[in-house]
Amino acid sequence: MIVEIVSTGTELLLGQIINSNTAYLAKRLNELGYDVLFQSTVGDNRIRMTQVFNTALERADIIVTTGGLGPTQGDITKEVTAGILGRGLYLHQPSQKQINDFFACRRIKMTENNLRQAMIPDGALVLPNKCGTAPGIVLETAKNTIIHLPGPPYEMEAMFEASVVPYLEKRFGSQGVIYSKVLRTIGLGESSLEEEIIDLIKRQGNPTIALLARSGEIHIRLTGKASSVQEAMNLIDGVEQVIRQRIGQYIFGVDDEALELVVGRMLKGKRLTVSFAESCTGGLVSSRITDIPGSSEYLVGSVVAYSNAIKSAIVCVDDAILRTYGAVSREVAEAMATGARSRFKSDIGIGITGIAGPGGASTDKPVGLVYIALAGDAGIECYEHRFTGQRSVIKSRSANAALNHLRQYILQL
Amino acid sequence: MIVEIVSTGTELLLGQIINSNTAYLAKRLNELGYDVLFQSTVGDNRIRMTQVFNTALERADIIVTTGGLGPTQGDITKEVTAGILGRGLYLHQPSQKQINDFFACRRIKMTENNLRQAMIPDGALVLPNKCGTAPGIVLETAKNTIIHLPGPPYEMEAMFEASVVPYLEKRFGSQGVIYSKVLRTIGLGESSLEEEIIDLIKRQGNPTIALLARSGEIHIRLTGKASSVQEAMNLIDGVEQVIRQRIGQYIFGVDDEALELVVGRMLKGKRLTVSFAESCTGGLVSSRITDIPGSSEYLVGSVVAYSNAIKSAIVCVDDAILRTYGAVSREVAEAMATGARSRFKSDIGIGITGIAGPGGASTDKPVGLVYIALAGDAGIECYEHRFTGQRSVIKSRSANAALNHLRQYILQL
Repeated sequence: MIVEIVSTGTELLLGQIINSNTAYLAKRLNELGYDVLFQSTVGDNRIRMTQVFNTALERADIIVTTGGLGPTQGDITKEVTAGILGRGLYLHQPSQKQINDFFACRRIKMTENNLRQAMIPDGALVLPNKCGTAPGIVLETAKNTIIHLPGPPYEMEAMFEASVVPYLEKRFGSQGVIYSKVLRTIGLGESSLEEEIIDLIKRQGNPTIALLARSGEIHIRLTGKASSVQEAMNLIDGVEQVIRQRIGQYIFGVDDEALELVVGRMLKGKRLTVSFAESCTGGLVSSRITDIPGSSEYLVGSVVAYSNAIKSAIVCVDDAILRTYGAVSREVAEAMATGARSRFKSDIGIGITGIAGPGGASTDKPVGLVYIALAGDAGIECYEHRFTGQRSVIKSRSANAALNHLRQYILQL
Repeated sequence: MIVEIVSTGTELLLGQIINSNTAYLAKRLNELGYDVLFQSTVGDNRIRMTQVFNTALERADIIVTTGGLGPTQGDITKEVTAGILGRGLYLHQPSQKQINDFFACRRIKMTENNLRQAMIPDGALVLPNKCGTAPGIVLETAKNTIIHLPGPPYEMEAMFEASVVPYLEKRFGSQGVIYSKVLRTIGLGESSLEEEIIDLIKRQGNPTIALLARSGEIHIRLTGKASSVQEAMNLIDGVEQVIRQRIGQYIFGVDDEALELVVGRMLKGKRLTVSFAESCTGGLVSSRITDIPGSSEYLVGSVVAYSNAIKSAIVCVDDAILRTYGAVSREVAEAMATGARSRFKSDIGIGITGIAGPGGASTDKPVGLVYIALAGDAGIECYEHRFTGQRSVIKSRSANAALNHLRQYILQL
């Protein structure tokens, strides 16, 4: 069953709102086993909306729409599809009553235009709206099914779960399931990663394999199609094992496990504490670590040491080292790591110094040069990175790298 | 000029990511006077992508695409349009060199598949990518213009501003302008703000007035339509003055001026330095401050003082105060502010302590209780907040509030 999602609304064409409805519907429909192959957006214009629906009726079995069911003159979605199918509209008594009740219960005066929402195409199914006034509408023809849902996300989502899911199940039966698992990697570029598993990608079938770059991480998405979740998981397991054998050291987590969550879990598991001396990341690593509930168990504290004075005063970096090697150097990163560790009395200390740009660079020290050092019982390690991009990107990549080095440091303990 | 935005990528059809690129492009193209009338999304499938492009070529003058320019086998956007237009692809030497340099500069091994990104359709214009490896591509025919942009938002946005805007101006001239100005407010809720200017909203014409809630801020967007930017700005000026007379103290900046930028500018202007002792915000305030280039001029340093031990060791909070009032208290926030100020030798010290949740609450100290104190020559001030929402929301709201209190503190100096 091929699905097209059609969003209507001039505010989408103007870029005034981001279309989150389509992502919600696409995700849920895929999970239910439907193939969402097209997504379209069109404004509240009768001619162009007719064009878009005619195209959709040809290439999709099911069309799910959002928006344009409201009370105003601009809300024309159901009039347009009724027109295409040659159906009239009538005042649907139960919907009229529901709209009356909605206003009465809120003690708001109902205006006449609200009754436009109770106008229903002949022969349509009506889906009740528990969170608002516009009912949903299902139009069936010999070839197509059109499902009209309201635009406000919470009304749309509630109606989808309460009415559309049971409707689809009853009308089309189970479509099997599509189950996805994401392997999150860091430390290997997209193209290098692809090269490691290019043979698997080329002969992929079920599950499918997709690579996605996500703010410094590369995600490998495995998607299996089967008659049950368990069966789909089994399909994925086979490919996952092969991938892990090849590039397991770069995979830090799955699905929605953020790097800071994984690192936090490892620290907790080994009863280790950590502290940071951050220069170019300016507190970003500590902020990400503390995004995780319970992080106070392993983060002792951190210092944002922007100036040389603070590097020496708070984390005891020797003035001579600063003078000899400069603030952005391997030696200072290591002194910051050692200094943080002893100052905060943590098991591991991490020092980060670099040039986030756009200013501060010199010929031998370009924007994006970042040193990350780790100090602990296993000794001192220091890594040099050369990141590109604007300031925020360099900060974010540096934070990712620091968290990943910490992960690898703990792994070897 | 009619524009269609085409997004490619299976991850969009699966609903794994929300399509924010389309909103960005739609907004900018509308501002430049282009009519975005259609938006389409299709997966990385040759047949269906060809269908979608053929439809777009018929109904739009300009097609702007995002995604599918990467190095992998799934990246086929430019091959598909080159195929439709009957053009071959060749290895574009400058792009090849740029990709080589990109990897050399980062000291990463470049793999063979990266050169796919340097393959350019015959007769195409090439748009350089300053933030990544995939160049943009412009294909011109007698009737249409196709502009291919990369998928990662920061690469796409940078390329749009640096190359596409001048290209459109040069090729098509001015389209008349839609000019928007955003007044950014903080400290007043959306409905209270609306009440202050409801009469203006009700009788709006040109410019239009829209209120938008944006992560703790309320934005007032004024949009004027005119034949020149100057004319549109004049229209906006009139309404802006009335709004500023009524709620000026809540407006901290305009357009893309983030709170941290405005505060940084104020600190710089008054030659003041600042330091933070962050508990519940975990480094987020410092990270935001350091997002601004040149922030080293006014941020001396910060400490993330999660534990009581660090609160007393690094910013000298008296153990007795911690014991008597508890770590989340007005008294401790004030001691942290004073301690940070003297420890870091800054003009202003700021202490933030609170309960970000979900754990750590007690009956009299609920999740979301946050104290923010400021210490400086003007004396000590402390504010109590009660935020709601999940951990990340409470952190973010606390950071907003801290920056806004700092703004107000500087204003009175």
